[in-house]
Amino acid sequence: MSTFNASELANPGVRQLQPYQAGKPVTELQRELGLTKVVKLASNENPLGLSSKVKQALAAELADLPRYPDANGYYLKSRLAELHGVDIKQITLGNGSNDVLEILARTFVGPEHQVVFSQHAFVVYPLVTQAIGATPVAVPAKDYGHDLDAMLAAINEKTRMVFIANPNNPTGTFLTTAELKAFVEKVPEHVIVVLDEAYYEYVPEAERAPSTDWVAEHSNLVVSRTFSKAYGLAGLRAGYAVSHVDVADLMNRIRQPFNMNSLSLKAAEVVLDDHDYIQRSVEINRQGMQQLTEFCEQQGLNYIPSYGNFLTIEVGDDAAELYQQLLHEGVIVRPVAGYQLPRHLRVSIGLPEENDAFIQAMKKLRG
Amino acid sequence: MSTFNASELANPGVRQLQPYQAGKPVTELQRELGLTKVVKLASNENPLGLSSKVKQALAAELADLPRYPDANGYYLKSRLAELHGVDIKQITLGNGSNDVLEILARTFVGPEHQVVFSQHAFVVYPLVTQAIGATPVAVPAKDYGHDLDAMLAAINEKTRMVFIANPNNPTGTFLTTAELKAFVEKVPEHVIVVLDEAYYEYVPEAERAPSTDWVAEHSNLVVSRTFSKAYGLAGLRAGYAVSHVDVADLMNRIRQPFNMNSLSLKAAEVVLDDHDYIQRSVEINRQGMQQLTEFCEQQGLNYIPSYGNFLTIEVGDDAAELYQQLLHEGVIVRPVAGYQLPRHLRVSIGLPEENDAFIQAMKKLRG
Repeated sequence: MSTFNASELANPGVRQLQPYQAGKPVTELQRELGLTKVVKLASNENPLGLSSKVKQALAAELADLPRYPDANGYYLKSRLAELHGVDIKQITLGNGSNDVLEILARTFVGPEHQVVFSQHAFVVYPLVTQAIGATPVAVPAKDYGHDLDAMLAAINEKTRMVFIANPNNPTGTFLTTAELKAFVEKVPEHVIVVLDEAYYEYVPEAERAPSTDWVAEHSNLVVSRTFSKAYGLAGLRAGYAVSHVDVADLMNRIRQPFNMNSLSLKAAEVVLDDHDYIQRSVEINRQGMQQLTEFCEQQGLNYIPSYGNFLTIEVGDDAAELYQQLLHEGVIVRPVAGYQLPRHLRVSIGLPEENDAFIQAMKKLRG
Repeated sequence: MSTFNASELANPGVRQLQPYQAGKPVTELQRELGLTKVVKLASNENPLGLSSKVKQALAAELADLPRYPDANGYYLKSRLAELHGVDIKQITLGNGSNDVLEILARTFVGPEHQVVFSQHAFVVYPLVTQAIGATPVAVPAKDYGHDLDAMLAAINEKTRMVFIANPNNPTGTFLTTAELKAFVEKVPEHVIVVLDEAYYEYVPEAERAPSTDWVAEHSNLVVSRTFSKAYGLAGLRAGYAVSHVDVADLMNRIRQPFNMNSLSLKAAEVVLDDHDYIQRSVEINRQGMQQLTEFCEQQGLNYIPSYGNFLTIEVGDDAAELYQQLLHEGVIVRPVAGYQLPRHLRVSIGLPEENDAFIQAMKKLRG
């Protein structure tokens, strides 16, 4: 008789892991409820469609897909190094910035370490920590955002990594350049500071921190960026880190050699120079944000002021029920009870007509 | 003064890791040597070009790339489950089968464990083992292939995983169904047996093991397959594992939710049904193998008989020098000194004219 017990064979950290819950895909809702028209405002995606320059470039690359990707990502890394004024050896590519975050944790964090992040911060921080069997330390938020003083106080000899999301997902809160800089200067050097700037491009230019410049003075700082948001490449998976060259060298030992696929390498390279696309992405987000905040104000709904491409709205104790009702109206938003925000729903900014679909569904359901 | 030392902060296993050396990309050789015409026979890729059905399907998907991939890979997993006659919950998707192998190691192997594999086997097995800080146990090969009796003897209480590559890369050696089955039946249940069948499609149908069927009786068996070889999707990254449902559940906790990108999900689904493409891939490989083995026999060169899409040829003590000389002739093959085969070069099977470019370069260089 078989005595096989997979769970007993798994690493202790893995047993307790709950897989990441992605936003419900449009096709899944269509299958489940037999709906044809569905609006997805659940995953902070770019609603503008693919950059036409990227589309053209990818069509030309399809024939070459039987070949492995360039394991060194030479062209993309060269372009990123130029953009940030750093050496190509300071760049680590990721299969989305999720991959970058995981590579960082696996490179530096062991089961004996603690990892510090904020309450209401991106769920991947505790996930990558738990997968290693390290101890996650969630520091209570202040006004839904990072309490940097409390986070500093939470750092001790066992701390090996601290994650800062700026802007933060799912709350959209933002730390100023001065606040961030002061924090980075105070963190001891035995702690790797991961500054996750997935939503960087949505921050008004005047308010953006020159974070990648700080790496030169702060060897323990790693800045993570993604192509999944303003650059519109979530489906292709592209992200990267800027770090000290020694940090990048170690990360690249853990990185799978072909973690970024051929098309994501090409698409990321091309979209970096499609300034018109980025501008339009940011502008349509600004307009949509205004559309949603005006609706909230009209309805007397509280929301967390957001620097991202989403708005997290306090809808009340029936948030879970409202989420289900919205699904039946063909509108997918994101429940955030898992982020200790059981009274909120996170709504990604879509096209004007998609935002309106959400607004009309809310008016129908909530009167 | 900064006392920052990245290496001291890294996990012990990571410090000793040497990153995987990929085959030299065509563009890199062109940059380095100023060559225009380059033939790459270095990475066991499909020389036939992309399936035209896949190309058509991908072109239609490009517009949707700003959306995240389906984290559950519903359509591809459904198709794979149907193909193998297993439950959809028994499938785990990977960003290439490299990702599957890494997920397996991270799910089940801890620093206290040993991992058994064969000498001359795929370098990713020791890499994923070392990254965890576990102990790799390389069992001496027999006739360049797996010595299954010796591998069984190497398994002890500390062994948590054993990797079997069939056919094996980079030697092309093959284990029969009877040999494999007998091995799987003898491995104790506390050891996960990973059967890596990346080159499965190149094996004549009559000789292929019904390995995925064995999972029903052997809960500790995991079969890994890739779309990077006969299916021609190396650039897109697609692979998967078939396992016991509990094993898959644990693997899916470690798996990054969007490890497979939208296009690889679609391409893999479509190419599975492009039987004509697969048949042509296998047939052109059969012909190319004959072309290369005949050349070797004419020249009196020893080679390792291969069930894969590559041939590993004993060229002599100057293999490293010959590799460099071939580069200058615009022919990229693969040195395998890192696989303890310093007298061999691995040559991937290309199109007839690509194989001929290698043959002509060899004749020019070796007379």
